[in-house]
Amino acid sequence: MKANLQVGVLGFGTVGSGVIHILEEHQAKISQVTGYNITVKTVLVRDLEKNRRYETKGFALTTTPDDIFNDPEIAVVVEVMGSIDIAREYILRALKAGKHVVTANKDLMAIHGDELVSAAQENGCDLFYEASVAGGIPILRTIVNSLAADKIQKVMGIVNGTTNYMLTKMTTENKSYEEVLKEAQDLGFAEADPTSDVDGIDAARKMVILTRLAFGMNVRLEDVETDGIRGISPLDITTAYQLGYKVKLVGRAEEVDGTVSVDVGPVLLPRAHPLSGVNYENNAVFVTGAAVGETMFYGPGAGELPTATSVVSDLITVAKNSRLGTNGNAFNSFIHETKHTPKEKVYSKYYLRLEMDDKTGTFLKLTQIFAEAGIGFDKIIQEPLNEFTATVVIVTHSISKAQLNVAQKRAEEEPEIRILTKYAVVEG
Amino acid sequence: MKANLQVGVLGFGTVGSGVIHILEEHQAKISQVTGYNITVKTVLVRDLEKNRRYETKGFALTTTPDDIFNDPEIAVVVEVMGSIDIAREYILRALKAGKHVVTANKDLMAIHGDELVSAAQENGCDLFYEASVAGGIPILRTIVNSLAADKIQKVMGIVNGTTNYMLTKMTTENKSYEEVLKEAQDLGFAEADPTSDVDGIDAARKMVILTRLAFGMNVRLEDVETDGIRGISPLDITTAYQLGYKVKLVGRAEEVDGTVSVDVGPVLLPRAHPLSGVNYENNAVFVTGAAVGETMFYGPGAGELPTATSVVSDLITVAKNSRLGTNGNAFNSFIHETKHTPKEKVYSKYYLRLEMDDKTGTFLKLTQIFAEAGIGFDKIIQEPLNEFTATVVIVTHSISKAQLNVAQKRAEEEPEIRILTKYAVVEG
Repeated sequence: MKANLQVGVLGFGTVGSGVIHILEEHQAKISQVTGYNITVKTVLVRDLEKNRRYETKGFALTTTPDDIFNDPEIAVVVEVMGSIDIAREYILRALKAGKHVVTANKDLMAIHGDELVSAAQENGCDLFYEASVAGGIPILRTIVNSLAADKIQKVMGIVNGTTNYMLTKMTTENKSYEEVLKEAQDLGFAEADPTSDVDGIDAARKMVILTRLAFGMNVRLEDVETDGIRGISPLDITTAYQLGYKVKLVGRAEEVDGTVSVDVGPVLLPRAHPLSGVNYENNAVFVTGAAVGETMFYGPGAGELPTATSVVSDLITVAKNSRLGTNGNAFNSFIHETKHTPKEKVYSKYYLRLEMDDKTGTFLKLTQIFAEAGIGFDKIIQEPLNEFTATVVIVTHSISKAQLNVAQKRAEEEPEIRILTKYAVVEG
Repeated sequence: MKANLQVGVLGFGTVGSGVIHILEEHQAKISQVTGYNITVKTVLVRDLEKNRRYETKGFALTTTPDDIFNDPEIAVVVEVMGSIDIAREYILRALKAGKHVVTANKDLMAIHGDELVSAAQENGCDLFYEASVAGGIPILRTIVNSLAADKIQKVMGIVNGTTNYMLTKMTTENKSYEEVLKEAQDLGFAEADPTSDVDGIDAARKMVILTRLAFGMNVRLEDVETDGIRGISPLDITTAYQLGYKVKLVGRAEEVDGTVSVDVGPVLLPRAHPLSGVNYENNAVFVTGAAVGETMFYGPGAGELPTATSVVSDLITVAKNSRLGTNGNAFNSFIHETKHTPKEKVYSKYYLRLEMDDKTGTFLKLTQIFAEAGIGFDKIIQEPLNEFTATVVIVTHSISKAQLNVAQKRAEEEPEIRILTKYAVVEG
């Protein structure tokens, strides 16, 4: 006779249904692995009368959160309701009631992760959130495990499926930003207000979570230099392709001398780079370790069942910890003081596209501005755009963000020079 | 004051040195995570006088295996000496002496894995072998973890770095098999006798290990239909490329209705397939789960430090299990009866290249042979090779191995038709 581990689920959307479905389907296997029958006892819903996709037998529905928090039989709370403020309050209440928590809520974990991790430790509870980054890819656990025997130097991730779908479509079908956005919205990949995806905010949130695990530093969302793909030009995608690159929205977190820099933005990746092969709504996280070298973890970034699978994996870990009496250890207890790399020490190559009045002396002025900032060029291509204007595409040597800022400011003082695009270039 | 977990290492080559190096470098972190100081006490070497790359202070060298097996202070044995028969004997002796074992030995685990796993369970010892497949990629642990909440349907792996290096070079530089083999040998990627790599044997061994973990079935090496890349023609690589494919040496294991089929051979992958982007000596394992969908794990397949990192990860798991008193559970205790899928039920598309005497009626005979076997064509291209001979390239519909065998046998009876190449084609 196995012991029971009873679960309360907050939210009965697609992920919540998926969790219930997987727990039922794999009951025998899960109980063999963990020594527990993991069963859902109560599900918090907004409306008891709404029609459900799944049968609701074997567990109770409630609209009263305390039916879960005050139930001494419920040992674990799964939060799959979304939102930030209410989810934060509910998770804190669950932890204070001594219940372990599994959440798929990236927005919450990016913004209040620090507070929630501390609350879990104070109450001796587990708090896992594997599903919050790259849905079906077990990336958080992999990072935590590999940390023990290696030192992670760099994490690069394609962690937003909507923008990756859009960029893939723009690249393979030569469509405009507006066309692919509409397509993504029609398919349900993008929301009516796509701000969080196309402006890189969703990716930045995931990078905050990845940075906490990979480098043990709590970076705030506002410290992530974030650029999105809103209105990205097909011309840049084509030009990049001709230069041997693909454009992807990439989050990068890198540690240098005990400091970390995190940014999100369109990046030019060599076409043979493993991240270049990550297409459509898929996600991937590319991790560089001092010993292991370059590894990549690829899979679906979202979706009901992939996300639910990650939630159930976390539930299995909670069950194993419960059996062994080792609950309450943070996902990653290896926390350092958060220090940001100064802009003088964050190096990258850059791709720049400029428009320039086609008059004698402008090109000279341009090269002077870059020379004064100490910026050398890998490639420079000038082509006439029309009778009065020239397009200039530049790929710089590896330079610091500070150098780039200097050149950019100087260029902005010159009305004849207009920097239209500025993307980092990852070397092969 | 942390407890000590003392290790005996069999073999002091590059991997053994790497393990010692990593244990030293990450001592503080490992002890924080596991609660143990993991230290190497004794290393078994062949020759005490040989010069070593690393300093040999802090532990003893011995040429007497019993110095390790009979030492009650040594709790874990790391086997990184290679070979099959002696390694098997040593590991059995270690397990019988109640010592946990970590090995990087894929040949051994492919051939004697079943016996060694049983011996470990009988003696209540851990036996881990993460490093035996895809060196630095934590693929075995990921498969075992994801199994609990999902059902794995298919595993496809580029698991031999030497042949992947050779095929990458042939594809990108249009070199011949002989040229790239020599290059790989000069670089130390391929051995003087490359049989094990180029004939697919090394890949088949790894597929035996992956199959055991993913499907809980013990497939024997001789049951893996194995084809290598020996003498592979640049013509096939070019033709495949023109048809939109890349040629990779891929191991495939698939479960259908409780039966499993495992094979290794050159495979045509759509150019946009994530495995197509795995180049040079890198490895990757592509796993399809019923719930999670398609995931891929990419990284270095070999190398001193990546392999040593995996060995140390296994040591950390042994230490955690020791702390929790949960040693002796098999890596995957989920074992089924081994049943092979009949050839009638193993489906794939195929790429075939034939030479055919260019006489009236031969093409008709060819199409008759395929029609009689019930094989339809996706593509068929005939081109003259010289005055008397034509080259025919065929991509079939999805057919069974049994159908293909029928057609192949019939074709062999016709001296005018010669099938030169037969590769599976993976659909996009």
